[in-house]
Amino acid sequence: MITFDTRPDLYRHWKLTFGGPLATLSMDVQEDGGLSPDYKLKLNSYDLGVDIELADALQRIRFEHPEVHAVVVTSLKERIFCAGANIMMLRGSSHGWKVNFCKFTNETRLAIEDASDHSGIKFLAALNGICAGGGYELALACDEIFLVDDGNSAVSLPEAPLLGVLPGTGGLTRVVDKRRVRRDLADFFSTLVEGIKGKRAVEWRLVDQVFPTSQFKDAVAKRARELAAVSDRPSTGPGITLNPLNPTVSEAEVQYSAVAVTLHRDKRTADLTIQAPTGPQPATPAEILQAGDQFWPLRAFRELDDALLRLRVNEPEIGTIVIRTEGDRDAVLAIDRTLVEHQADWLVREIILFMKRTLKRLDLTSRSFFAFIEQGSAFAGSLFELALAADRSYMFHDDAEENVIALSPMNGGLLPMSNGLSRLQTRFLDDPDRVACALSHDGPINAGEAEELGLVTFAPDEIDWDDEVRLAVEARAAFSPDAMTGLEANLRFAGPETMETKIFGRLTAWQNWIFQRPNAVGEKGALKVYGQQGRPEFDWKRT
Amino acid sequence: MITFDTRPDLYRHWKLTFGGPLATLSMDVQEDGGLSPDYKLKLNSYDLGVDIELADALQRIRFEHPEVHAVVVTSLKERIFCAGANIMMLRGSSHGWKVNFCKFTNETRLAIEDASDHSGIKFLAALNGICAGGGYELALACDEIFLVDDGNSAVSLPEAPLLGVLPGTGGLTRVVDKRRVRRDLADFFSTLVEGIKGKRAVEWRLVDQVFPTSQFKDAVAKRARELAAVSDRPSTGPGITLNPLNPTVSEAEVQYSAVAVTLHRDKRTADLTIQAPTGPQPATPAEILQAGDQFWPLRAFRELDDALLRLRVNEPEIGTIVIRTEGDRDAVLAIDRTLVEHQADWLVREIILFMKRTLKRLDLTSRSFFAFIEQGSAFAGSLFELALAADRSYMFHDDAEENVIALSPMNGGLLPMSNGLSRLQTRFLDDPDRVACALSHDGPINAGEAEELGLVTFAPDEIDWDDEVRLAVEARAAFSPDAMTGLEANLRFAGPETMETKIFGRLTAWQNWIFQRPNAVGEKGALKVYGQQGRPEFDWKRT
Repeated sequence: MITFDTRPDLYRHWKLTFGGPLATLSMDVQEDGGLSPDYKLKLNSYDLGVDIELADALQRIRFEHPEVHAVVVTSLKERIFCAGANIMMLRGSSHGWKVNFCKFTNETRLAIEDASDHSGIKFLAALNGICAGGGYELALACDEIFLVDDGNSAVSLPEAPLLGVLPGTGGLTRVVDKRRVRRDLADFFSTLVEGIKGKRAVEWRLVDQVFPTSQFKDAVAKRARELAAVSDRPSTGPGITLNPLNPTVSEAEVQYSAVAVTLHRDKRTADLTIQAPTGPQPATPAEILQAGDQFWPLRAFRELDDALLRLRVNEPEIGTIVIRTEGDRDAVLAIDRTLVEHQADWLVREIILFMKRTLKRLDLTSRSFFAFIEQGSAFAGSLFELALAADRSYMFHDDAEENVIALSPMNGGLLPMSNGLSRLQTRFLDDPDRVACALSHDGPINAGEAEELGLVTFAPDEIDWDDEVRLAVEARAAFSPDAMTGLEANLRFAGPETMETKIFGRLTAWQNWIFQRPNAVGEKGALKVYGQQGRPEFDWKRT
Repeated sequence: MITFDTRPDLYRHWKLTFGGPLATLSMDVQEDGGLSPDYKLKLNSYDLGVDIELADALQRIRFEHPEVHAVVVTSLKERIFCAGANIMMLRGSSHGWKVNFCKFTNETRLAIEDASDHSGIKFLAALNGICAGGGYELALACDEIFLVDDGNSAVSLPEAPLLGVLPGTGGLTRVVDKRRVRRDLADFFSTLVEGIKGKRAVEWRLVDQVFPTSQFKDAVAKRARELAAVSDRPSTGPGITLNPLNPTVSEAEVQYSAVAVTLHRDKRTADLTIQAPTGPQPATPAEILQAGDQFWPLRAFRELDDALLRLRVNEPEIGTIVIRTEGDRDAVLAIDRTLVEHQADWLVREIILFMKRTLKRLDLTSRSFFAFIEQGSAFAGSLFELALAADRSYMFHDDAEENVIALSPMNGGLLPMSNGLSRLQTRFLDDPDRVACALSHDGPINAGEAEELGLVTFAPDEIDWDDEVRLAVEARAAFSPDAMTGLEANLRFAGPETMETKIFGRLTAWQNWIFQRPNAVGEKGALKVYGQQGRPEFDWKRT
């Protein structure tokens, strides 16, 4: 079973060092440290385990080191920055594993850009050697790219010419949409095994600057200090410590403090339940800092994030997930008020951004989500985002009208989707006024009102509830899982596309297609024969 | 060999009738009239042949009937509007055929929307019976949808629940992005085999209005007249006649009047050459009307369009296409001036819109395009769009600097891509000023200048030319065709996404993925067992 818990002293592949406002993330992949013994992680190539450490390091820089204002991403290997995703690992992986591996690496790269855009942490890729494929995709996620000009070091995306697949971690999209490399130059570059180096790499906008070896370190240090200087993060700590989540894991359950997952493997469904906070809650930045990772929104969303990741990689056959909430609705709304009031505080900001990224993780998880809003639920404010993120929501329409939901300012734009809109905006594309109308609704909203406002999909009454929700889940779990994946990937992202949604929509969808074509993964496919004797044999038919 | 030539008196599946400002397009598919005898086109289900007639009818309404201001799309079958794409046809088709079939039907639906947005022709779908799958997707392409309320007629997208695939002609995208159906309602609707009818279909925005059978015809006629009343098309004809193209087809060549395709099947490449106009050209709307379909831009782009379609469906192994132009550059520029000057004229407008759609067809053709700009070429103005559309362009840098290109106002936005930008804007996303700079360049541009302005990819000189272009084509033709398809689908569409690009990018890419998953097309896949005994068997793993 794959888990996503780690911490710096356990890292095998990265070194995270600190110096004043700068952190340095140095890749030094241990060849024998892969998740499977079937491959060796040569030349700083990576597998999911390497990326789990990277994702952890980014979280710790955000939360544990507020004094860090810029991060240098580099390598400890001579003349090698990173050779990209490990090809032997890809070759030996199932289709689903490849897809989920790419999804996680994409989310991690986007978290770098999120930190740059919203957290006041800038990233400088210091390419001290060969930077190929996924290595260059990591660099592309940074704000700036410096490349050593030693006559040898180049950036490249050799996936298409060498392996018959695409760069799977946003490379093509970021080249033309983020760095705005001219599309014909990008075409040439992306078919070039050896890559591009030196001045031409700068002229084509593939990197920002190149320096001879003798000047490289100083130039990187100088620029990193400049990038750090513009941050609005605190100049000193303390941060908070992210302690291990330590869920109780049994055959059919993963139980955290505020989140529980119960698996029904025979039905291919799961129940995912989130508990509202209990007891007194911190209300000021000082109290929140003191509560640290035990502050409910951070704790609950860390647990939710971990639960989603475990479901993705460990439970591929669980296709339909029912989301419930329980507990004190007003306690959630109180926390939302605290978050909104203190959103300018660095830690509160980080907590809100993490909630946002977790909800995006849910949007991008290829499982069907139904929210069941029942008596005693706590679908209020930020927890109501779970119902908005779900493919459908069912709200029990009790005669007494005691079953209610509630909105808060947290539904108003602080937790946007990848498309740049809030979930309410995406829901009411037909009439933006309905967003304002819903947000202005003061106090609890019963099932009839919720249906009227368009906030829930269905509101069956006592007579219908049991049958209707049972049949809905059974029907969902019986459909083709691929068709549901495609359906959800289209319907969840109504409205505008962004670089982020293009990466998951256009690029990933094409990559997934290619990842199962015989030209890539057949006996004589390019991914299969790479590094073996002989050349790939292609079915030349174009589609 | 599939051809795309037809005309109304040859139609087997559609009746096109005219009455003043209204045309009526009535579907009446002949069961035995499919392109293959292996399936019967029951219940107004369709194959590529049916859609070729529809595409032809739309062209003729535009060009031959300027007096038509609105079109009613309906069916001559009792209680059946259209059952969608024929499932037996899909089941028996290769992956590549399915993909190209969907691509063409998508382009045809988008041509309906193009006519509505830009030609002053509005479309009213009059659903006189069951409207399922591709039938509803056709309705979604119309401006408004009227549905008969007879207790039986419903709209539906049953592909996912019934066949384990997606609606492949833009259905999911148009439901949420065009009609702005709420995403959770769209989710429910798209998993419902029986569809939605009556008032609920209106409330959910799936159709615009419903009428009892007794009032349906009158309501349709009334609304069609209202839609026609807002048109800026001429109130009377004449239009022009679109005569057959009648190319000379031999084993390795398709030769039109201004376009020639030469196939090199052993190398998996083709040469596509477009001739500039010769002799005196019409310069006024009256002269253009008189020249009719022999007016060079219409003639040349009709031939180009036909050539691209033939390559798509008849020559799947031709993966790399070299585009050349020949002839009098100034004659092209003179035509461009005429088009721009008279763009408000209905016929000139139609010609420009058709050029636009043809260039989009090229953008969406999954073959690699290289433009070779050599001595005697005519890459000027609208023909230079071909070089901008190509994945790369190579311009021969002659010592005498006589090899030149030229821009015209036609490069300035009259021929936008699916992403809503001109090809120059897409090219210079990094710096919009460079678009203006290029457009302001007066007169011919030699190879050195073209490279400087960023208008061509490479400009090899006499010493390098032969080897460089030969090696480029050979290398391209040796890469995995799937990887090139995915690469091009990403790099060609830098910049914003639109509903149109979402259909081809997000929706189509996912559909292509699903179209080769065993859950759809394996022995026990949903598409394979539909209508047979037994139920599909799924691999339940989610990705």
